[in-house]
Amino acid sequence: MAAERSVKQITSKGDDFDRWYVDVVRRAELADYTPVKGCMVIRPYGYALWERTRDALDGMIKRTGHENMYFPLLIPESYLTKEAQHVEGFAPEVFWVTQGGDRVLEERLAIRPTSETIICSLYADWIHSWRDLPVLINQWCNVARWEKRTRLFLRTAEFLWQEGHTFHATDDEAAAEVETMLDCYRELSEEWLAIPVIKGRKTESEKFAGARYTLSIEAMMSDGWALQSGTSHHLGQNFTTAYGISYSDRENTRQHPFQTSWGLSTRIIGGLIMAHGDDAGLVIPPRVAPIQVVVVPITHSNDEDAARLVEEACIRLEREAATEVRLRVDRREGMRPGEKFAHWELRGVPLRITVGAKDLADGNVTLVRRVDGEQSAVALEGLGSRLQGLLDEAQKVTRARAQRLLDERSVDVGSLEELVAAFAEQPVFASGPFCNRPECEVTVKGAVHAVTVRNLRADRTPDGAPCIACGQPAGHVALIARAY
Amino acid sequence: MAAERSVKQITSKGDDFDRWYVDVVRRAELADYTPVKGCMVIRPYGYALWERTRDALDGMIKRTGHENMYFPLLIPESYLTKEAQHVEGFAPEVFWVTQGGDRVLEERLAIRPTSETIICSLYADWIHSWRDLPVLINQWCNVARWEKRTRLFLRTAEFLWQEGHTFHATDDEAAAEVETMLDCYRELSEEWLAIPVIKGRKTESEKFAGARYTLSIEAMMSDGWALQSGTSHHLGQNFTTAYGISYSDRENTRQHPFQTSWGLSTRIIGGLIMAHGDDAGLVIPPRVAPIQVVVVPITHSNDEDAARLVEEACIRLEREAATEVRLRVDRREGMRPGEKFAHWELRGVPLRITVGAKDLADGNVTLVRRVDGEQSAVALEGLGSRLQGLLDEAQKVTRARAQRLLDERSVDVGSLEELVAAFAEQPVFASGPFCNRPECEVTVKGAVHAVTVRNLRADRTPDGAPCIACGQPAGHVALIARAY
Repeated sequence: MAAERSVKQITSKGDDFDRWYVDVVRRAELADYTPVKGCMVIRPYGYALWERTRDALDGMIKRTGHENMYFPLLIPESYLTKEAQHVEGFAPEVFWVTQGGDRVLEERLAIRPTSETIICSLYADWIHSWRDLPVLINQWCNVARWEKRTRLFLRTAEFLWQEGHTFHATDDEAAAEVETMLDCYRELSEEWLAIPVIKGRKTESEKFAGARYTLSIEAMMSDGWALQSGTSHHLGQNFTTAYGISYSDRENTRQHPFQTSWGLSTRIIGGLIMAHGDDAGLVIPPRVAPIQVVVVPITHSNDEDAARLVEEACIRLEREAATEVRLRVDRREGMRPGEKFAHWELRGVPLRITVGAKDLADGNVTLVRRVDGEQSAVALEGLGSRLQGLLDEAQKVTRARAQRLLDERSVDVGSLEELVAAFAEQPVFASGPFCNRPECEVTVKGAVHAVTVRNLRADRTPDGAPCIACGQPAGHVALIARAY
Repeated sequence: MAAERSVKQITSKGDDFDRWYVDVVRRAELADYTPVKGCMVIRPYGYALWERTRDALDGMIKRTGHENMYFPLLIPESYLTKEAQHVEGFAPEVFWVTQGGDRVLEERLAIRPTSETIICSLYADWIHSWRDLPVLINQWCNVARWEKRTRLFLRTAEFLWQEGHTFHATDDEAAAEVETMLDCYRELSEEWLAIPVIKGRKTESEKFAGARYTLSIEAMMSDGWALQSGTSHHLGQNFTTAYGISYSDRENTRQHPFQTSWGLSTRIIGGLIMAHGDDAGLVIPPRVAPIQVVVVPITHSNDEDAARLVEEACIRLEREAATEVRLRVDRREGMRPGEKFAHWELRGVPLRITVGAKDLADGNVTLVRRVDGEQSAVALEGLGSRLQGLLDEAQKVTRARAQRLLDERSVDVGSLEELVAAFAEQPVFASGPFCNRPECEVTVKGAVHAVTVRNLRADRTPDGAPCIACGQPAGHVALIARAY
């Protein structure tokens, strides 16, 4: 009862988006704070959501020819520091292990902030010949980065992710890999999480420390802010040179291989919450929903015959759903139907079926779709076999709604004035011609509070229009937004 | 070619079991050493084996009502130290984080050696009422324990495992949980990994630090040594009292819940290697084999018609195996069949099918079973649909062979003299009546070099026979062996 009353205490999105977000994460029992500064605990419902997301992406990673491995958590300082830009970028965030038991270690060990350095150290011994290439591997693990300001799922001192690492004989092959994996992230985001994304290339100031370039997918949250949801890096030969990885090519000449890395983390769960959630709580796309259909029986203790009919209908739905659909009947006692509705709405279950004696007399049950509240009376007969289709439909509606938001809040701008005007009322995704010089990036950031160049869009060209910052010829269309 | 020649360099088991083990792990590319002292890298083939083992156990953990979660890697020192026996047991093994970026942390953070302490800290806020019980959760993660002497898979400074944690209203319910999960470990070991085990209770000196008692499964390796392969602990109210976890029972009285924890790690992969492997390398039970069937085509470049027929047969097997059986055709060029045979024998693939034009003329292919080398000519027609049955048979043969070894090298002893005699020729599993007093445990350990009491067998009673150490009445039958 106490838990249910708390449902009513979710802050309204319109009143305070940040508080709404934290309320949803905690009240839906996805995750919570811990006594460990900056670290969260992922609770069963949140972890089940991550498991489904992870398994979907793992399938794509394997489908594209990669194999999983596991590398050490701890990286000796001397291994971490060989690539200069990399260590400069990550050193301020590293947690250092200095003692083992009561011994002081001879060399400090970093908790991995990412694993390029240890992986390169190992592959220096494993790559000898062109026959050893390509190397296509991936790791699911935890990483740690010391952060001043943390937010559940979005920015935590420790997070779970996958990091892919590949080595190739040619620059082009590495470039193709970077695109392939970015497209897996797009597929995961759009086709599983129902979040449309914009692909593009990060600016120099925003690329991965040590990369030649970084590609990203950027998603719009329902407050109009952007979330960088996955990144894929072309590392060139920066690390393979620094770590002494070389191979004999077919002409027996020593070459440094070209390298990529790419990662996607539990941060994407934060994206799912902010992209789809509403004032009643979560809205989970069916494909990743731990529970896809909840059945709420409506019974009155004074009518045993009716209760039996309702229970029979519930059993029938359970049997028909079987292993195809993740369906749960909420048989909890001492809880009013309205409380159960709120409980499952908060948790974003895509479809709710209410089974009551009155509807059953007509052979019907009531179906409610979480994403838009659409309600209908449907025949119990054959409903089990229709559930998958109804879930597919809910998946489409969820994605279409997110696409509509993105379309409505996307604005093309041709000048700094138009950029300022675009943000006058609310945060938007502004796209404008951009020359990609660092000084113009500074100008853009200075024009509107808290905006950044998210990426240089892969799907747009400036068609001869001048840079919005300097008026010189623009080679790119920049996506400009406020970002988490 | 170099890799193949190295196959011949595997040390013979009989010559040096330890070197044989390390050779197999490294040459079959399961895992390897790293520059990080005591930490290993798990390579794709080893990780695929772990994934299958993990998924099998994860299914059992969920089937028995548990949900997965994720807790922080780092535990503040003040949280680690509340249960006195626990911290005494683990403090010597803890890796300490003392710096974040260039800041010295106010409080040291332990890398989790196990998670009871952080979990209890959190559940103190989440458990209030009898309605909140039982709590049945599990975590798949990495843990770190500083170790002086390490061995690939068996004892590493960092390892992967699952740790289950449960809270119950009654002592009996907790005791039943401890048994239930030990039986999941038995099921995993016997029915998936084909390793028979002996269940029992650890002595006081060997129990988990902070537990009331610990149950274990002990498996026999093919050198006659024991491997503790999974442990399940009844924690009583030790931690719930120390961490202030209490709930209101139905009579509204405050009570401390009873707690359990249980874990199984990548160590079990070491057990699989040592239980089944032979001088040709790994022997993997089919149910967890990353590749269950390897097909080696025998072709001669001077006969195109024959080559086409062989390739057609391979394609047919691939198609028939489809998603049911994990089958791979080894089409590598420039490698002799014998080299391929050795390659896949080293990797322990359960079944090999050799497809040659001569056999095909009679409609046959050659089938070789890895575990016992049994070879037969079988009809290609219908083979695809028979593969699952052949794999089931190979699984049974693998387990039966391990059971036979255990039976042959198990000895009942009624006195210290008989214990000494039992170990005179080779390491065995000796079982004898035991009173379970610490001084008798010391006596037993002193009687034969390097033996320990592995557990007090769950399946045996002393039937009135006196303790082998002191001659007093014995309440238990002790399993005595040398152990990894």
